[in-house]
Amino acid sequence: MKQFNNITIIGVGLIGGSIGLGIKRKHLANKVIGVFRRKSTLDKALARKAVDAGSMTIKDGVKDADLIILATPVHLIPGMAEEAMKYAKKGVIITDAGSTKKWIVDKIEKIVPHSKFFVGSHPMAGSEHKSVEFAVSDLMEGSPCIITKTRNTDKTAMAKLVKFWKAMGAQVKVMSPEEHDVSVAMISHLPHLVAFSLAGAVPIKDLSLAAEGFKDTTRVASSDPELWADIFLSNSSRLIKSGRTFERYYKKLIKALSKKDHGGVVRLLKSAKSKRDKFVYGKNS
Amino acid sequence: MKQFNNITIIGVGLIGGSIGLGIKRKHLANKVIGVFRRKSTLDKALARKAVDAGSMTIKDGVKDADLIILATPVHLIPGMAEEAMKYAKKGVIITDAGSTKKWIVDKIEKIVPHSKFFVGSHPMAGSEHKSVEFAVSDLMEGSPCIITKTRNTDKTAMAKLVKFWKAMGAQVKVMSPEEHDVSVAMISHLPHLVAFSLAGAVPIKDLSLAAEGFKDTTRVASSDPELWADIFLSNSSRLIKSGRTFERYYKKLIKALSKKDHGGVVRLLKSAKSKRDKFVYGKNS
Repeated sequence: MKQFNNITIIGVGLIGGSIGLGIKRKHLANKVIGVFRRKSTLDKALARKAVDAGSMTIKDGVKDADLIILATPVHLIPGMAEEAMKYAKKGVIITDAGSTKKWIVDKIEKIVPHSKFFVGSHPMAGSEHKSVEFAVSDLMEGSPCIITKTRNTDKTAMAKLVKFWKAMGAQVKVMSPEEHDVSVAMISHLPHLVAFSLAGAVPIKDLSLAAEGFKDTTRVASSDPELWADIFLSNSSRLIKSGRTFERYYKKLIKALSKKDHGGVVRLLKSAKSKRDKFVYGKNS
Repeated sequence: MKQFNNITIIGVGLIGGSIGLGIKRKHLANKVIGVFRRKSTLDKALARKAVDAGSMTIKDGVKDADLIILATPVHLIPGMAEEAMKYAKKGVIITDAGSTKKWIVDKIEKIVPHSKFFVGSHPMAGSEHKSVEFAVSDLMEGSPCIITKTRNTDKTAMAKLVKFWKAMGAQVKVMSPEEHDVSVAMISHLPHLVAFSLAGAVPIKDLSLAAEGFKDTTRVASSDPELWADIFLSNSSRLIKSGRTFERYYKKLIKALSKKDHGGVVRLLKSAKSKRDKFVYGKNS
């Protein structure tokens, strides 16, 4: 069911490419245009049919767009949104796929012109990979997608965006950018930070002994460092705060261990397991 | 290729059951006998053909054994080894599948009679599940298996055990119990402790927003609390020491974040990623 005539995706990596493939699989637009920094990525995206056409400039890429999706690294989003809004037609809806929301939404809401609409999104899917080669059309299927609402959010634009992400298969939730950043610091940014720390701390000689537990616990430490430095820094105060909650639990466990307190250790592990067992994930838990 | 006439597995859960299935698939023994605490588990193990016959007592279960494998929780291993050695015939080889080695090996070496042989093993495979229903015949395929060697270790018995685990598909490494415990604290026990802490710290309301990153990073927090309390406590001093190495890396990252030190964050994430990318796991990395 077509929801938009033209959709432009700025930044066609794993996320942007998967969104393109998803739009085409679900027939949500007549045309998907990609905006690229590198010609080689444009060629790959066209070969994978993640987009119908590509442009090397935002100006050309967005001029006919009814929906623009910014899927670049976080720190580039506000600047690219500004440029996209400049060249997009009236009535355009602009959204993003950034992992932090407060910083992005605050910056863009200050510059969005009256006749154009910005609503923040965070499709919570992905993997440790980042390029369009790893894009899949069902990446959003069953994944959470947060849409941010502020007092400036246009209700009609937001409703269209909710409908769009639902059609992509996502479990849509609407919340404020602040609420998003607090929750996501805990549930996504912190696990990444901890996984990087675990991988970083391991002596190389021990790697040959690592098995399934290490493999899964540190999988996301193979993610792109620049991308994640960017995400961590754009949400650093909330991330540090989530870190303190984690540290308290961890220290309680260490304390119980150092006291050889069997009952205490079991209680803490049971409480952790009971939470983990409540977690049911769209695709497979 | 038959390596033993009779193999007895004491404790037929995920690990013991998978070893049984593996022995039978590779035809490494004429008969596999299981020793059980619960009749219901015995029935399940027979139904899954993880063992050829079952016994509810160690005395009966081990009397014809040429190889005895103890696959019970860690704290039960030394006591059961003592009982098994009492009723087993001369020349028997006894090993275990415990996740800690120093505590187990020290205890058993003190009580092993002259005509019987104990060599510690740690097949490093498993999952968050613990019962025989989840046993699979290829669990050891490509997984590391550590065999411990001390000044008391009988060379012939050890060579037979190395051959056995290799035939099961494992990547065998021989080291001292101390070396094992230091490495495994870092590469296995610590990731489990951290995963439990992450899951334990998460507010339940945020669980519905969790996605792939959280899923993998905390998967092992669904493991059995009693089993892991047992493992953590049997290796607590080394685990706490590994924890300090992890904490140093984590704190460096938090410090760089709090100083908004982009270059510092990127450097730490890059170093972590480069280690994680070096990790190649038998089955799939």
